[in-house]
Amino acid sequence: MTILIKNANLISMDSSREKYEENIDILINDNIIEKIEKNIISANDAKIIDATGKIVMPGLINTHSHLPMSIFRETIDGFGLQEWLKEKIWPIEDKLTSEDIYDATYLSCMEMIKTGCTTINDMYFMTDYIIKAALKTGIRLQTTKTLMSSSSDSAKIRLEELEKLMDTYKNEELISFNAGIHGLYTTNEEDTKEFIEFAKKNNMLVHMHFCENSQEVQDIRRNYNVDSPIEVIEKYFTKIPVILAHSVKLTDEELERLSRLKNVSVSHCPISNLKLGCGVAKIQKMVDGKINVSLGTDGQGSGSNLDMFETMKFTALLQKGINENPKNLPAFEVLKMATINGAKALGLDEKIGSIKEKKIADIIIINTNTEVMQPVNDIFSDIVYNAKGTNVETTIVNGKILMENRKIEVE
Amino acid sequence: MTILIKNANLISMDSSREKYEENIDILINDNIIEKIEKNIISANDAKIIDATGKIVMPGLINTHSHLPMSIFRETIDGFGLQEWLKEKIWPIEDKLTSEDIYDATYLSCMEMIKTGCTTINDMYFMTDYIIKAALKTGIRLQTTKTLMSSSSDSAKIRLEELEKLMDTYKNEELISFNAGIHGLYTTNEEDTKEFIEFAKKNNMLVHMHFCENSQEVQDIRRNYNVDSPIEVIEKYFTKIPVILAHSVKLTDEELERLSRLKNVSVSHCPISNLKLGCGVAKIQKMVDGKINVSLGTDGQGSGSNLDMFETMKFTALLQKGINENPKNLPAFEVLKMATINGAKALGLDEKIGSIKEKKIADIIIINTNTEVMQPVNDIFSDIVYNAKGTNVETTIVNGKILMENRKIEVE
Repeated sequence: MTILIKNANLISMDSSREKYEENIDILINDNIIEKIEKNIISANDAKIIDATGKIVMPGLINTHSHLPMSIFRETIDGFGLQEWLKEKIWPIEDKLTSEDIYDATYLSCMEMIKTGCTTINDMYFMTDYIIKAALKTGIRLQTTKTLMSSSSDSAKIRLEELEKLMDTYKNEELISFNAGIHGLYTTNEEDTKEFIEFAKKNNMLVHMHFCENSQEVQDIRRNYNVDSPIEVIEKYFTKIPVILAHSVKLTDEELERLSRLKNVSVSHCPISNLKLGCGVAKIQKMVDGKINVSLGTDGQGSGSNLDMFETMKFTALLQKGINENPKNLPAFEVLKMATINGAKALGLDEKIGSIKEKKIADIIIINTNTEVMQPVNDIFSDIVYNAKGTNVETTIVNGKILMENRKIEVE
Repeated sequence: MTILIKNANLISMDSSREKYEENIDILINDNIIEKIEKNIISANDAKIIDATGKIVMPGLINTHSHLPMSIFRETIDGFGLQEWLKEKIWPIEDKLTSEDIYDATYLSCMEMIKTGCTTINDMYFMTDYIIKAALKTGIRLQTTKTLMSSSSDSAKIRLEELEKLMDTYKNEELISFNAGIHGLYTTNEEDTKEFIEFAKKNNMLVHMHFCENSQEVQDIRRNYNVDSPIEVIEKYFTKIPVILAHSVKLTDEELERLSRLKNVSVSHCPISNLKLGCGVAKIQKMVDGKINVSLGTDGQGSGSNLDMFETMKFTALLQKGINENPKNLPAFEVLKMATINGAKALGLDEKIGSIKEKKIADIIIINTNTEVMQPVNDIFSDIVYNAKGTNVETTIVNGKILMENRKIEVE
């Protein structure tokens, strides 16, 4: 299929272009962005999308979530973390069927499409059904078989399952895999090493929860017999790309050490971190240290929903407030986190994360003509602080229109 | 006009009722809520609104804003507070015409109607044109003539103007007045005393910025020759109701002193406080101390927009994160802040803030049938964390429908 987007106000997130350009046409052929120019004349059979007065930008990339957790939305009010897990989450998780996983994931994918998120990095169980639901909806998914050391689980079992999945879906261009380690506090050293070796051999990244709360930090110290969780990263994770979700409880000195490693991305999940009472990650310091920061919603159990516009707003505001400096995290920096930085974190930046010729067409169109976005004095700020998922009119993934004028096009 | 809302899922915020009730009818006659019951049979000429499966709750109350500042939306990115004021705000404010004030206020009122806010407490200048725009749109407004001591300004001048306004609009049921003192750091002691006396005589409350940032605290200390800004409140503000906007920079000891006074409401503006780098007010401590906490957006210059749903979400999450306690501020407590507490703060709780027979009909209807709000496991949390202004379908103020099915009904 050929799609021609006409008269876009383009925020391409391609650093070789201007940050903002008006009246640009974008020609998409099959799943590839073929041309970005003014006044493109296209073949007759192209599907024309008139984007006059609208913002066209890359689809948002969510680098940490648990898709089936939509069923746990708003179950935590009035609970402490441990109570919530024991009374609400674990008893229900034990009973989840493959059908539950499929349906809950399908709902999450609909949330993504309706809020302009085109790629998600997931970590849960019964991955097969998560993939099936994602494929049905057309979103881009990176997923894994998650390692948690226990009597019934081991790196060996999980890696066999992961290899099988990789083989089953090797021809699906929307699906990619990473090596998911639940966390250093829930795995033993041998299993962790095995996962890392597998990741290296398969040219994969590792996705892992890291230093989300104080208890976890203590558990890692004890499990790995280290003074700081960073020692484990320095010892084992230096030769492979890794996404550390959360990274809330790190001292300035630990952040400095983390920034010396060049392969680390942090997936910042501010809403979940607040809701669970974890605190606020030192994102401005990470940016100063040139750590690649991307954004995640976490699962809806703690993150409430998958609307990445909310995550952008919280990210931009929290650092200013906590550091008492309104110059922290300008809006454009936050847009990078939600797009190209996310693509880098997932090892997909050759393909997605910006609107650029030869890249894949993962694109959203935003209508700014609503009361809360007018007048537009600064378009980047207006998107970060005032746009909501509901301002997304059109969502395109892999060159396919999944939503147009807020109507879902998935069959 | 008679309106009959059928089959509502009612969150009345009336403490004498259940927190949540299903399939309730609400009969509105003229501007008064006449009956709240199941299966009301009404006269033939009633306008029927079918609220089946929808949430009906009191309109939201915004207790601190500057309505004409919609024109300054997103002008601060990359600026420090003082630079922003000097380079962006003051030069433009100097040139604002009465027409600008009217138009900018009109836009803000549209924002309110579209996001389910029915009452706003405003503080700006050229108040006459703010009132004219508000009246045109049908929202409920409390406003003032703001005192700032300067060579060209004094309590005497402002109070004369305020008396004139009060007289002009004395028959407008949507308009009420308070005594607005810009802040202790911008007024001298004599002017402040005069305003307070006026407020007492006229049975009015005082609305004032208070301890928004560290610089302000220092300025108050110097201006009033006190160790703590609380001393000024204890000395002059004990016999009248007062709304202190912001109240960010207060120590635990100062909060304890504040909670001993029974006439103080705090208007919490979390988004503005973050964006300007002020910090996070200690709201959980205020709630523990039984201070009446209401919510405000501040002007769009720092608050971005007037969507009170966002303010509720930030309020609920910030305390949990900062205090590292997920049990802080349950969702229902935050709903109170945005409704009945706001009404109390404005001295309007006999009239609005809850859905109750004989009260005035300021009511909103929320559609929860969107992907990010389903499934509904806890309706209060779902509203605080997942509803957005765009979920509001219908806005009724003073018994008049200002928006129905998201279509503005203002002529």
